[in-house]
Amino acid sequence: MPMPSESSEPRSCVLQPSELHSSVHDPSLGAVNFLNEIMQRHPKAISFAPGAPYPVFLESLDVQGYLDVFAQRLKAQRSFSSAQVQRLLHQYGPSKGLINDLVAELLLNDEELAVGADSIVITVGCQEAMMLVLRALRSGPNDQLAVVTPCYVGLIGAARLVDFDLVAIDESDDGLDLPQLERACRDARASGKRIKAVYVAPDHSNPSGTHMPEHARVALLALAAEHDFLVIEDSTYRFTSAGPSPTALIKSLDREHRVILLGTFAKTCTPGARVGYVVADQPIGTGRDPARILADELASLKTMVTVNTSPLCQALIGGMLVVHNCSIKRLATEKVRRYQGNLDRLLAALDEHLGDFPQVSWNRPSGGFFVRVRLPIPVDEALVARSAEEFGVLWTPMSHFHINGTMNYELRLSCSYLAEDQIDEGVRRLSRFLRAVVSPVREGVACDE
Amino acid sequence: MPMPSESSEPRSCVLQPSELHSSVHDPSLGAVNFLNEIMQRHPKAISFAPGAPYPVFLESLDVQGYLDVFAQRLKAQRSFSSAQVQRLLHQYGPSKGLINDLVAELLLNDEELAVGADSIVITVGCQEAMMLVLRALRSGPNDQLAVVTPCYVGLIGAARLVDFDLVAIDESDDGLDLPQLERACRDARASGKRIKAVYVAPDHSNPSGTHMPEHARVALLALAAEHDFLVIEDSTYRFTSAGPSPTALIKSLDREHRVILLGTFAKTCTPGARVGYVVADQPIGTGRDPARILADELASLKTMVTVNTSPLCQALIGGMLVVHNCSIKRLATEKVRRYQGNLDRLLAALDEHLGDFPQVSWNRPSGGFFVRVRLPIPVDEALVARSAEEFGVLWTPMSHFHINGTMNYELRLSCSYLAEDQIDEGVRRLSRFLRAVVSPVREGVACDE
Repeated sequence: MPMPSESSEPRSCVLQPSELHSSVHDPSLGAVNFLNEIMQRHPKAISFAPGAPYPVFLESLDVQGYLDVFAQRLKAQRSFSSAQVQRLLHQYGPSKGLINDLVAELLLNDEELAVGADSIVITVGCQEAMMLVLRALRSGPNDQLAVVTPCYVGLIGAARLVDFDLVAIDESDDGLDLPQLERACRDARASGKRIKAVYVAPDHSNPSGTHMPEHARVALLALAAEHDFLVIEDSTYRFTSAGPSPTALIKSLDREHRVILLGTFAKTCTPGARVGYVVADQPIGTGRDPARILADELASLKTMVTVNTSPLCQALIGGMLVVHNCSIKRLATEKVRRYQGNLDRLLAALDEHLGDFPQVSWNRPSGGFFVRVRLPIPVDEALVARSAEEFGVLWTPMSHFHINGTMNYELRLSCSYLAEDQIDEGVRRLSRFLRAVVSPVREGVACDE
Repeated sequence: MPMPSESSEPRSCVLQPSELHSSVHDPSLGAVNFLNEIMQRHPKAISFAPGAPYPVFLESLDVQGYLDVFAQRLKAQRSFSSAQVQRLLHQYGPSKGLINDLVAELLLNDEELAVGADSIVITVGCQEAMMLVLRALRSGPNDQLAVVTPCYVGLIGAARLVDFDLVAIDESDDGLDLPQLERACRDARASGKRIKAVYVAPDHSNPSGTHMPEHARVALLALAAEHDFLVIEDSTYRFTSAGPSPTALIKSLDREHRVILLGTFAKTCTPGARVGYVVADQPIGTGRDPARILADELASLKTMVTVNTSPLCQALIGGMLVVHNCSIKRLATEKVRRYQGNLDRLLAALDEHLGDFPQVSWNRPSGGFFVRVRLPIPVDEALVARSAEEFGVLWTPMSHFHINGTMNYELRLSCSYLAEDQIDEGVRRLSRFLRAVVSPVREGVACDE
C-alpha cells in the first residue's frame, strides 16, 4: 500500500500482491472457480468439466417437503412443538451439528461402520471438513501432508490456506505408490520433518477415477502404523460403486483410529445445501479430559470459520435421510444408475470415436464421475480455450490437479453433468478437436498455435 | 502419536495436544461454544449470555414463501424457467455469491453507499468473512492486526486460526484509543513489523455496546492513511441504531478504499441461513489485470474454505430483501423496536435493582444487544457457573473478549434473546447473586468459595 500523495486529493490505497498471503496467488485457488465458471463463458459448448450432479435430479427437489419430514421427526421423537422446530431451524446451533445421529446411522446402515454421533462434525460441504482437518493437524513448519497425485484441487487449496507443506505421492493402478510414500516418510524424518497425514480418495478418485483394492487399503494402514501418520479418507464418489459388496472403507478396516473419514451430501442429495461431514474419533491425550477426541477440536475450530453449518440446510439433508431410512444406497439408487450409465456411455463413445486414434489413450474406471485421457501434447488452459471456442467442447486440464503446475499431458472428462446424447455429441467434438491438434505434431508438422 | 506396541493387539493412536495447531488450544475458540451451549447445561436459568436474535421473530419465518419470491424475481427479471430456478438454488454456484446485487442495492438504500456488486462476496455468516479477510491480509509473521479490546471473540479466533499476531488497543468512550493505536503503529515499524489492519465494530460493539462518533471515525481514517493500514469495519449491530440520521459508516467516509466492510443477515433475517457479506473494493496492484480487487481474491480463497455459500440460503435471504425493497431499515423495523425496548428495559431494571449498590457499575449504550457491568471482584467461568447453579441467571465473563485472558472484572449482559418479563426477573436474580458474592469481599470477610 503506497503512502498517500502530498496533494489534498484522496488517493486510493492499492494492495500489492506481496502484501497478501501466498495462498491467494496459488494457481490451485483459481481452479475450482475455473471449473464452475468456464461454462458461463461458453454457454453453447458441451462441457465435460464440472463434477457437478446431473441437473435434472435437482429440478424436482421439494425443500419444504423434506423440512416437514425433519420437523415431524423432531415432534415425534423429541416432542418438539412447531415453535421449537422453527427455533431449531433458524437460530444458532451447536458447531458440531444437528444431524450427527442420522449420519452415524447412515454409516452403520450402508458401511457397517459403528461410530459415535459425537465423533462426527457436520460441515459446510466436504471442503470445510478438509480445511478444518488440515488446520488442526498442521502444528508447525516441519509437518508435511502427503497427497495422492493427481489430487482433488480443493484439498491442495485447503493445504495452501494453512501453509501445509505438501509432498506429492504418485497415484498407481491400485491407488497409491506405497513404496514412494514409505521413502517420503523416511526422507521426512531424516530431514527433521514428518509426514503427519496422507490424503487419499480410494473410491473412484477425482480426477482419475482410480479405485484402491482392499489389499492396498490394508497395506496403507500398516504403513500408517509403522510410520505413525493419519489417513484422510475422502469418500465423495464412493456411492457410485455399484454391486452388492464394494471394497471396505479404509475407516472400516482401521482398528487404531488412524483414519479421518470425509463425506459429502453434495453429490447424493444436493450441492445447494452445502452439507458434508467428518468422522474424527482420534483420542486426544490431554489427561485433563480423557473423553476428548479430534472431532471436539474440529468443532471448536469450526466456530471460527463458519460458527455452525446452516441448521436449515442440515434439516433439508436430514429430511432426505429420514425419507430414505438413513441409507445413501436407497436414497441414491436412481442416481447411481444414471452415473454408471453415463460412465459406460462415455467409455463406449471414446471407443467408438477415438478407438482408431492411438495417439490418445484413457483409463477405464469402474465408478465415479471421471475418466482421464492422455495426449501426446502438453495440455494447458489455452488448449481448453481453443477446444471450447473452435470445437464447442469443454474439459479440465489435469495440471489443475498437480501440486507444482508442471507441464502435463492429460485432461479430465467428467460425465456426471451431461445427458447421454450430449455425451455422444461431446465425444464426437472432442475427437474432431484432438485429431486437429494432435495429428500435426505426430506427423512432425509444426502446430500453428 | 505413540508408535504401536510390539504386541499384535491393535493400539489406538492418540494425538498429543502438541501435535495440533496452536489455535486449537486457544481459549477463545471455546468461548463461542460456551455462549451457545451454556444454556443447555442450565435450561431453567435466565440467560443474558447469547447475542442471538429474539426467538419469537424466528417462529413464523416462511422459508418456502421467501424462496418463491426469489424465484419470481428470477423469472420476471431474467426470464428463468422453473427448472432453471431449481438448478440455481440446488447446484454449485459462483463463489462470490448470488445475491450481491441485492446487497449492493441495500447498502445504497440504507447507507447511501455506492459499491459495485462485484466488490461484494457473500459468505457463510460474518464469521467466514472475517476468516477470509484475515487469511488474505496476513502475508507473514511481521504482519500485525490491531483489535479494539474487548473484542468480538470470533474475530480473535479467526486471527488465531491464521496465526495473525494480535495487538490489543483499548476501547475508549468514543470507540478506540487512537493515541495508543498510533504508538502501536510506530512500535511495530520500529521492530520491523507492521500494523496491517485495525478491526473495529463502531456501532454498538459486541461486547461493550460502545458507539464511535463521527469525529472519531474521521480521525481513524486519517490515521489509517498516515500509517498505511486498512480498517476492518464490522457493522453487525448497526441496524439497531434508531433515529433518522445515524452516524455514517466508516466505509461511507472512506475515499481511499481503506475500509473493508463486514455485514451479516443473522441478526436481521435469521442466523439459520448463515449468510453474511464482505465489501472489499481495494484495488490489487498486479499490473496484469488492473480491474482485480480484493473481493476477487477473497472469493478465490473462499473456494478453499466452503466453495460457495449455500444458494438455497442466499435465495431465502434474497427473498426477504426483495419483499422489503432491499432495505434492512424496512425489514427490521419491528426488530429494532424490540431490541431498543429490551435495552431500555435492561438499563431500567439495573437502575431499579442495583442502583443502590455502588460496588457494581455499568455503561449505558444507545443501541446494540449488550451492556457491560463492572464488579469489584474477578469474573471467571467459575463465577458464571455459581451464578447459574445457585441463582438461576447466566451471563458472559468479559475475559472471553480479551486477547490474553488476564484477570478481568467485567461481565457482559445481552438483552436480545429475552422477553421483557425475563429481563426484569433476570436482573432481580443478578442483583441477588451480586449482593451475595460482592458484599463479603467489600466488607473484608473471606468469600466462602
